[in-house]
Amino acid sequence: MSPPTVTLLSDFGLQDGHAAAMKAVILTVCPDARLVDISHIIPPQNIRSGAYVFYSCYRYFPKGTIHLAVVDPEVGTQRGAIAIRARACCFVGPDNGIFSLALREESEWEARRLENERLRPGPLSRTFHGRDLFAPAAAHLACGFPFEEIGPLCEPVFPNWHEQWVGKGEVRGEVMHSDRFGNVITNVPGKVLEEQGPAGNWALKAGNRVIESIGETYAQVRAGEMLALTGSTGLIEIAVNRGSAASELKLESGTEVVFKLSNS
Amino acid sequence: MSPPTVTLLSDFGLQDGHAAAMKAVILTVCPDARLVDISHIIPPQNIRSGAYVFYSCYRYFPKGTIHLAVVDPEVGTQRGAIAIRARACCFVGPDNGIFSLALREESEWEARRLENERLRPGPLSRTFHGRDLFAPAAAHLACGFPFEEIGPLCEPVFPNWHEQWVGKGEVRGEVMHSDRFGNVITNVPGKVLEEQGPAGNWALKAGNRVIESIGETYAQVRAGEMLALTGSTGLIEIAVNRGSAASELKLESGTEVVFKLSNS
Amino acid sequence: MSPPTVTLLSDFGLQDGHAAAMKAVILTVCPDARLVDISHIIPPQNIRSGAYVFYSCYRYFPKGTIHLAVVDPEVGTQRGAIAIRARACCFVGPDNGIFSLALREESEWEARRLENERLRPGPLSRTFHGRDLFAPAAAHLACGFPFEEIGPLCEPVFPNWHEQWVGKGEVRGEVMHSDRFGNVITNVPGKVLEEQGPAGNWALKAGNRVIESIGETYAQVRAGEMLALTGSTGLIEIAVNRGSAASELKLESGTEVVFKLSNS
Repeated sequence: MSPPTVTLLSDFGLQDGHAAAMKAVILTVCPDARLVDISHIIPPQNIRSGAYVFYSCYRYFPKGTIHLAVVDPEVGTQRGAIAIRARACCFVGPDNGIFSLALREESEWEARRLENERLRPGPLSRTFHGRDLFAPAAAHLACGFPFEEIGPLCEPVFPNWHEQWVGKGEVRGEVMHSDRFGNVITNVPGKVLEEQGPAGNWALKAGNRVIESIGETYAQVRAGEMLALTGSTGLIEIAVNRGSAASELKLESGTEVVFKLSNS
Repeated sequence: MSPPTVTLLSDFGLQDGHAAAMKAVILTVCPDARLVDISHIIPPQNIRSGAYVFYSCYRYFPKGTIHLAVVDPEVGTQRGAIAIRARACCFVGPDNGIFSLALREESEWEARRLENERLRPGPLSRTFHGRDLFAPAAAHLACGFPFEEIGPLCEPVFPNWHEQWVGKGEVRGEVMHSDRFGNVITNVPGKVLEEQGPAGNWALKAGNRVIESIGETYAQVRAGEMLALTGSTGLIEIAVNRGSAASELKLESGTEVVFKLSNS
Repeated sequence: MSPPTVTLLSDFGLQDGHAAAMKAVILTVCPDARLVDISHIIPPQNIRSGAYVFYSCYRYFPKGTIHLAVVDPEVGTQRGAIAIRARACCFVGPDNGIFSLALREESEWEARRLENERLRPGPLSRTFHGRDLFAPAAAHLACGFPFEEIGPLCEPVFPNWHEQWVGKGEVRGEVMHSDRFGNVITNVPGKVLEEQGPAGNWALKAGNRVIESIGETYAQVRAGEMLALTGSTGLIEIAVNRGSAASELKLESGTEVVFKLSNS
């Protein structure tokens, strides 16, 4: 049997020993775990961006994967700790919405408070629950600890990162994340636009910029030109062929974007 | 038997879920694969830099390694997809020259178009063939899928990244890559210079700067001073001891460098 | 039995093939090794920062782990190469102090010069002992090569990165490292202060800035405010809640920090 996979997502960066300390703790509890980094350079304390990055890839991992995600600006306060079973996988992390975009995609899941003290090798530090609380819990789950014994059932926090479907001929959404290529990713699925009218008839307003139509590939515009298209996660993104929409638009996470259908 | 190693090289960066999605797809197809990152921070869409980084390390991996490399500015267009068998290993990626520097080192290899649809778990997205096409192909090869059934034989694309050996007493080359330490790496092998005359008799012109001789170790000049030497991959590089030649010289990939032999 | 874990720490960065070449060499010598990155983005040639990052996480790894650490500004000169057995683990790297902060925590250890030529697959390059010397040695140790045959016993280099405990009511230390979150980490353990007086009675002077007391969690001050607290490794660090102390203070490694106890 293949060893259990444990993924790691955090905003700890790669210049320090934080991500490595979590991996060390996992291997100490579960020596056969297979460790896979999702990302450790989520913008510091940006739960929203972490939630998007997790959403963008979690569904491709095999059944049985344990997903550890630690973007935790409230560490040391009373925010909860959570484990969620969904898609024959487990999500482990702070209860702050980091898994909320993924959960909106899932029809069935079960969430429990991470309260069983047998899951903790020692006392909690005040600033590093990734190492002291979440990593050991993920490792125990990877090694077969029964999900039901994690703690009591609970309702996870759902921040209001919601699409606003204004109605016929108009859709409002938000900027979620800017990626490595400078693509600016919104929370509006390409499908929502397609249901109302052909891509070529939609215009998009983002910041001061209007994009005249929704395209299909980066390469269909000239180098340096901006377009919008459905990205690989199914959401509409704004891109510049061989350039950076993020540095041209300078839009923060949460900025509104408005789509309008012409000739409809 | 050790699990098959699959290496990953891309320009997807580490702040998004792209590299993780490729890993997830690989582990779903081939749960025992051992994943090793070469780099995911190749400068965006810079095939040349990706080709150099791949060249700099591929030869050290054990036999049987599957190398997945995705720097793919033409994704969504008609550029080909390729798998190459060389050195008892396989290279998988877009057919755009990403493997060309490595192939120039190899005397025997066989290239095939990646056309067998059994290698694809689902439809291709328009923007992420790394996840939808190349990762599953690499994973199937790691799990024993016969190379001969990948697709028809083909000739891979070879961009004209060629050394120009002007002749006795003069060698012209190009800047290939700037590394983490600010070393500026050319495509001129130290051996080519050595064959014509002793290192101390060569001068190098790069941009506005003349370097008077070819040295042997960074530490032979004082902190802050520039020198040229044969780097660890056998190619001549320009370095500043405890400093950055890249930020002093500001030379892009492809800039010409000229070596002249004095007293010859 | 679980495969042996080999950790890697370096200043090679992730944009080149250097870290991958070390991994390739390890897997060639010891195909079952489990590779775990600690960090490859230690500031270039900053042994002190590398020593801190190693110190911050090495103790969490399971017994039997082989730790490879290569921050090596003197590569190509006469600096020594070393392997150290401590905590049922091995440390392998240049003999320049990279392991010194960790060794100060250990009561028992044994150090040997890395001299056995059977550990080297080929000739040494002048600039890349990580690949040619340290990685193969680490891999052989991971595969059971006897530590006693590495080379003769020796005393490792200890740089004078020492706390200065000035005495009652005053403690002087130094800045060691700035982390991803902009926290500025000193070499003064929180315990040293606690032994002399309550946290709230200590003030800290760092550069031009005075911090009035030692706190407990980032969240106890408002967003944008600075505080000092005992970090997750037990050392006092300076932080700005949801901000960066590093960019406000601009203190280099080695800068003095002074703690004074009031009302004592």
